[in-house]
Amino acid sequence: MTQSPVLSQTEPSYLHPLFSTYPALEKSLHGQVRKKQFGHGESVISHGDGAAHLWLVLAGWLKLSRQTPDGKETIVGLCTAGDIFGEAALFANANYPYTVEAIGKQVELAAISASAIRARVEKDSKLSAHIMSMLSERNAQTQLKLEHIHTMSAAQRLACFLLRLCASQASGARSLHIPVEKHVLAAYLGMKPETLSRSQQQLKPLGIQISGERVEIQYIDRLREFVCGSCSESGMGSCEGEN
Amino acid sequence: MTQSPVLSQTEPSYLHPLFSTYPALEKSLHGQVRKKQFGHGESVISHGDGAAHLWLVLAGWLKLSRQTPDGKETIVGLCTAGDIFGEAALFANANYPYTVEAIGKQVELAAISASAIRARVEKDSKLSAHIMSMLSERNAQTQLKLEHIHTMSAAQRLACFLLRLCASQASGARSLHIPVEKHVLAAYLGMKPETLSRSQQQLKPLGIQISGERVEIQYIDRLREFVCGSCSESGMGSCEGEN
Repeated sequence: MTQSPVLSQTEPSYLHPLFSTYPALEKSLHGQVRKKQFGHGESVISHGDGAAHLWLVLAGWLKLSRQTPDGKETIVGLCTAGDIFGEAALFANANYPYTVEAIGKQVELAAISASAIRARVEKDSKLSAHIMSMLSERNAQTQLKLEHIHTMSAAQRLACFLLRLCASQASGARSLHIPVEKHVLAAYLGMKPETLSRSQQQLKPLGIQISGERVEIQYIDRLREFVCGSCSESGMGSCEGEN
Repeated sequence: MTQSPVLSQTEPSYLHPLFSTYPALEKSLHGQVRKKQFGHGESVISHGDGAAHLWLVLAGWLKLSRQTPDGKETIVGLCTAGDIFGEAALFANANYPYTVEAIGKQVELAAISASAIRARVEKDSKLSAHIMSMLSERNAQTQLKLEHIHTMSAAQRLACFLLRLCASQASGARSLHIPVEKHVLAAYLGMKPETLSRSQQQLKPLGIQISGERVEIQYIDRLREFVCGSCSESGMGSCEGEN
């Protein structure tokens, strides 16, 4: 089996999709992007705080969560390299709609100040079109996740999550490093930890080996076959995007 | 009990929130907004078609749905007066991500051509900020819906749906007209039709009378008490918005 690279923890910031698909932005923000590092369990932002920065994930994993008044924690997102969070910073007087905490080691983020990104967006209609398209895509992904709760089995939802981490790689093998505790991943996927364990077993015959934080996928195309027949996005274009 | 107005089916287009909160838009689009009427069961747009128009709902109810390759229909949205659909029209070469069908009688829509709205957005940074904020709010709503599947009971989800239709009305009574078939509403709320029936029974002691398409809410504040303690958006600002 060909070894393909583990999801990089050390990609430099200029490879973040917001900069690679929109190079003019990085130039125009020169000096207004601050890199920050966080360790496991460290809090990055809190639900309800004023949205002072737009955050780009350069490396590592983070958990986006919220609490209900009656005390339940809900995991509303998992982010890793290439993702963005804190889009509320794009809007005047907005608050962060979730708490974000580093869950892997070596979490590296780039923070763009709200005023800097808003000033750029106001001046540059192409950038605002790009950001609108990004927001719309994110909405489509959330909508799909909601759909999958009803149309997919737990094992298919886990497989879909793994597929997305393979991004545009259509076939072949892939190794992933997912330093996310089982109960967090289960909550994110909308299932109980014991259902996640059973789902991992169900994926074995498809060539998926999960051992702690490491996932070995032997045949991406077999995974796709297993999942995509139960997804209304299938055949309608890309289902890549944030998880 | 004070009778408050049934959700209007005849509001003129200038009251649509996109125009009332952004009056310059209607002026600038003069002559490029076409009104269209649809009867029950009529198709408005199809999943995968090129997004030729942005659609504003002026009156009536519509169902947004998708099909999985293995034949399951999923209801991804219900729209009524004040809602918008077809935001894909904001982006070049985008396709509609769902099929839309009129489900009530007297469905009245305003269609803005994709080229007209894109030209306006490109020229007007305030309009693009407004639309970004709208997209972001829509994403927050979808995210909340996903959360509620896990944090709320079926009766609470139904109550939350009713509360949203009361928009910003904080207390008092309200009459609603919801011409949505039971199996469609159940699918939209992520439950079986028999669970929806049980949920309706559970809401009776809170002063909710559902009789066919008519819903009488006696005490909006009691409904809010029943629902909002299980929602992480509670106390963090408005939870108004599209359903």
